[in-house]
Amino acid sequence: MCASPPRKAAAMPEARALQALKTEFENELFESVIPFWERHSPDRTHGGYFNHLDRAGQVYDPTKNVWLQARQVWMFSKLYHEVAQHPRWLTLARSGLDFLRDHALAPDGRVYFALTADGQPIYQQRKLFSECFFAMALAEHARASGAPRLAQAARAMLATIWEMVLDPAKTGRPALPGAPALLPLAVPMIVLNLIDELAGDDFAAYQPQVDFCIGRLRHHFAGGKLYEYAGPSGELRLDLAQGRLLNPGHAIEAGWFLLRWAARRGDAPLTQLAGDIIRQSFDLGWDAEHGGLLYFLDAEGQSPIQLEWDMKLWWPHCEALVALLMLYALERDPADWERFMRVKGYAFAHFPDPAHGEWFGYLNRRGEVTHTFKGGPYKGCFHVPRALWLCWRLLGRLASRPADP
Amino acid sequence: MCASPPRKAAAMPEARALQALKTEFENELFESVIPFWERHSPDRTHGGYFNHLDRAGQVYDPTKNVWLQARQVWMFSKLYHEVAQHPRWLTLARSGLDFLRDHALAPDGRVYFALTADGQPIYQQRKLFSECFFAMALAEHARASGAPRLAQAARAMLATIWEMVLDPAKTGRPALPGAPALLPLAVPMIVLNLIDELAGDDFAAYQPQVDFCIGRLRHHFAGGKLYEYAGPSGELRLDLAQGRLLNPGHAIEAGWFLLRWAARRGDAPLTQLAGDIIRQSFDLGWDAEHGGLLYFLDAEGQSPIQLEWDMKLWWPHCEALVALLMLYALERDPADWERFMRVKGYAFAHFPDPAHGEWFGYLNRRGEVTHTFKGGPYKGCFHVPRALWLCWRLLGRLASRPADP
Repeated sequence: MCASPPRKAAAMPEARALQALKTEFENELFESVIPFWERHSPDRTHGGYFNHLDRAGQVYDPTKNVWLQARQVWMFSKLYHEVAQHPRWLTLARSGLDFLRDHALAPDGRVYFALTADGQPIYQQRKLFSECFFAMALAEHARASGAPRLAQAARAMLATIWEMVLDPAKTGRPALPGAPALLPLAVPMIVLNLIDELAGDDFAAYQPQVDFCIGRLRHHFAGGKLYEYAGPSGELRLDLAQGRLLNPGHAIEAGWFLLRWAARRGDAPLTQLAGDIIRQSFDLGWDAEHGGLLYFLDAEGQSPIQLEWDMKLWWPHCEALVALLMLYALERDPADWERFMRVKGYAFAHFPDPAHGEWFGYLNRRGEVTHTFKGGPYKGCFHVPRALWLCWRLLGRLASRPADP
Repeated sequence: MCASPPRKAAAMPEARALQALKTEFENELFESVIPFWERHSPDRTHGGYFNHLDRAGQVYDPTKNVWLQARQVWMFSKLYHEVAQHPRWLTLARSGLDFLRDHALAPDGRVYFALTADGQPIYQQRKLFSECFFAMALAEHARASGAPRLAQAARAMLATIWEMVLDPAKTGRPALPGAPALLPLAVPMIVLNLIDELAGDDFAAYQPQVDFCIGRLRHHFAGGKLYEYAGPSGELRLDLAQGRLLNPGHAIEAGWFLLRWAARRGDAPLTQLAGDIIRQSFDLGWDAEHGGLLYFLDAEGQSPIQLEWDMKLWWPHCEALVALLMLYALERDPADWERFMRVKGYAFAHFPDPAHGEWFGYLNRRGEVTHTFKGGPYKGCFHVPRALWLCWRLLGRLASRPADP
C-alpha cells in the first residue's frame, strides 16, 4: 500500500460501519496494545516500567525515561478511572507513580529526564516537559485512586511549571545575546493539555493561564501554517530554518488540545481556529506520493535540517486519528471523515504488529519499518493507547447517533 | 546503482589507471567543490562564511556554525600552504579567522558553537569540539600566513582543551550519579587529529598527550568493533543502547587519524590496529543490500535508537576514501584497493551534483537524495575537499610508484 488511492467524495458513515470501526479500535487497544505493556514493561524489582522494549517485548536498555514513566502512569490511571476498574491497572499505575515520587524529583524541585532502573538520576533536560508529564500522572492518579493529596501535588507542580513558562531562563538554559527571540509551540500546547487534564471540570480557576497559552498558540499560526517557533508577540523568523520549521503531527495535536478548550468554552471562533489548524496541517503534511504524514517540513520548501524529516512516525498518525475524529464528531463534515479514514487506513496498514502486539514506531518515507523496537526513549505506553481509547470512545458516541448534526 | 556488484578479486591498479583516477579527484576538487565555496560562502558584509547554502548556493539561513567556519579556514589555509599560493585562498581563510577571533571567543575563554551573521553568540555546546576546530584553524593559518603568534594561540587553546579532556566536567555538563561512566570516542580521536595538525614535525613535544589519546582510543576497540562509548578503563556497557552504539564512518576516520600517528612513529603494531579498525568498520558498515555505508549500528543487532541510522551521509564515505587509500598506499593489499574502489564508485555515483557543484550530503538507504542543501549546520567546506585533496595527493604518489611494495 504505497501510493494514495484517488480521493472519493466521502460518504457519511452508517451506524453499522461505525460500530465495526469501534470494534476494530477496541480490539487493537485491549488485545494488542495494552497487553503488550502489561506483560513486558513492569520492573518487578524496582517498580516503574522498562520503556526500551524490543519487537517481542524484551528489555534492550534498562534506562527509564521520565516522560514515558509518567505517561504510562497517566494511561493506566485513565483506563482504570474511565474504562474498567481492573485492580491490576491501578496497581500498575501506582508502581510507576511511586517510582517517580521516590526517584524523579531533583533536590531543587525540578524533575529529571532519565533514571537508571534503580532510580539514580542520569540526565536532566533544560526544558519543562518532565514536570508537565509528572503533573499529568499525579492528577490522573489522584482521580483513579481518590487521593486528593496527589491532586494537590499536581497543582503545586503546575505552579512551578508556570514560573518556567513565564521565565524560560528558570529551566537553566542560558540565553545568549544572539539567540533568536523564538519560543517553542510545545510549551503552550503541552501546558494547555496539562491544565485540561489537571483541572477537570474545575477549569474556570485556570482561565488566565489558559487564555495566556491560547494567545501564545495563536501567535504560531500564520498563512495556514502552525510554526514550531514564533516570537513572544508572534514575530516569525522566516529567514531562519528554525523559524520556518513545521511539524504537522505536532500541529495536529495542538489542534485537538485547542479544540477541547473551544468545546468546553462553547467558543465558536476558537473551534474554527482549531479546525483550520488540524485540516491545514494534515493536508500540508500528507505525503501525496507514499501516503502517511511527513515528520518535518520547511514552510518555504527548503529541505528541513532534521535528517528524519521524511520519516513516518507513529505518533503524528495517532494524533491525526484523534483530531480528525473529534472534528468530525463536532461538525460532521464528510471531508474530515475522508481524512480520518485515510489516516486510519495508513496507520492500521503500517504500524500494528500482530505477531507481538503494540505498534512499530518508525517507518521510512515508503512506509517500511526502519526500527523494530516497540518502546524507546520517546515511544512508550502513551500515544497509541491514548489515540485508540479516545477514538474508541468517540466512535461509540457516533455509533449511537450517527446522523447527529 | 542500487545493489552492490559481486566482488571480484581486485587487480592492482596500473600507473595509467591511477593517473586517470587522480585527474578525476582533481577535477572534482578544483572544478566543482572549491569553486562552490569560493563563489557562495563568503559573507562580504561581516566576514566569515555562510554555511547554510542550498543546492544552488543560496543562503537559506544566516547562522554561522563555528565548527564549519573554523574548518573552512583550515581548508583554505591548507590549500594555500600545500597546493597553490593563490592569494584569494589566503584572503578567504583570513576572513574566516578574523571573524572567529572577533566573535567566537566567550569571555571565559571557551568557544561558542553558533553565531549570528554579524557575530552575536547564539549557542555554546557543553562539548570541546568548537575549541578543537578553532585551534586547527589557528595552527594551519599560522603556517599558511607565516604568523607564529597564531601558532602560539593554537597551542594555548590546546592547553585549555587538554584540561577539558582530563576533566570533562569543565565543559559545563553536570554529571549526575546515575550517568553511565562512558566517554565518547570523539574526544581522543579529534584531539589526536588536532595534535597531528598543530604539532607538525614538532610532535615529540606532545608525546604524553598522544599516548594518552591512543590509549583511550584502544579502549573503544573490542571484538572487531570500535565502540562510540567506553569507560575510562575500557569498560563496555553492552546493556545500554549508548554502550552498543557504532558509527562506522566515525570509526574509519579514527582509524586513519591513528594510521598517521603509527606511520610517523614507525609503530607496526599500531599500524596493524589502525588497519583492523578501518577494514573491520568498513566491512561492518557496508550495506550489502543497497551499497554505501550505514550511519549507525547497534553492536548486538538491535535497532539503533538514532532515527537516521540507515541513511548514507557524505562524510563517512569521504573518510573511507581517505582511510582505505592511505592503507593501500602503505600496505598494497588488493583487498583494500577493492574496498577503496567500491566506496569511490558509490560516492562518485551518488553524492556529486554536476549541475551546481559540491556534493549532496544526505541520502536515504536506497541512495536517493533526501536533503538538497550543500551546506547545513554540520556540513560545510571540509570533509569533501579534505578527502578529495588527500586522495588526489595519495593517487599522485601512487601513480609515480605504482608497484612499490
